[in-house]
Amino acid sequence: MKPNLEHINKAFESKARLGIMSILMVNDSVDFTTIKNLLDLTDGNLASHSRNLEELGYIKSNKQFIGRKPNTRFSITAEGREAFISHIRALEDFLKSQNL
Amino acid sequence: MKPNLEHINKAFESKARLGIMSILMVNDSVDFTTIKNLLDLTDGNLASHSRNLEELGYIKSNKQFIGRKPNTRFSITAEGREAFISHIRALEDFLKSQNL
Repeated sequence: MKPNLEHINKAFESKARLGIMSILMVNDSVDFTTIKNLLDLTDGNLASHSRNLEELGYIKSNKQFIGRKPNTRFSITAEGREAFISHIRALEDFLKSQNL
Repeated sequence: MKPNLEHINKAFESKARLGIMSILMVNDSVDFTTIKNLLDLTDGNLASHSRNLEELGYIKSNKQFIGRKPNTRFSITAEGREAFISHIRALEDFLKSQNL
């Protein structure tokens, strides 16, 4: 009866985190505003999610100026790619165990 | 590039919520302590998750005394079953879109 949830990674639990990681899995780097718009997040929301993912070592940010405007681009780290793939596998195992 | 996350239900985002719902999907009713132990949750944690799921109409609780001791059993509602199945489908669609 114990559901198979062991390897599900709490860092990727929320819809926003799934979204951020899946965008960065298939792009070398993506800027803050593009991610924000794709996922319909607020500035504050994305800033806190991305800060946490960066602290965990799953993504990294690159801050630069484009003209006078600051621009932040994110990319996934090798560790982040590996952790996200095993999270996806864990979700797949969980879903298989549901037999729906 | 927009990840397919639309029908993912925020009410089932956390590992604990996935666990609670999947236990109740395959049992008529399960008591508080059994769920708590199966999912390694604290009393407070399970109490807040189950209260929220109940407020959303996804589960219902039945409180009774066994001898002198209060006992709470939970069961899934028809609405909860439907919502959880569509959440599982949405997760499946999201995972398929990952092509991993």
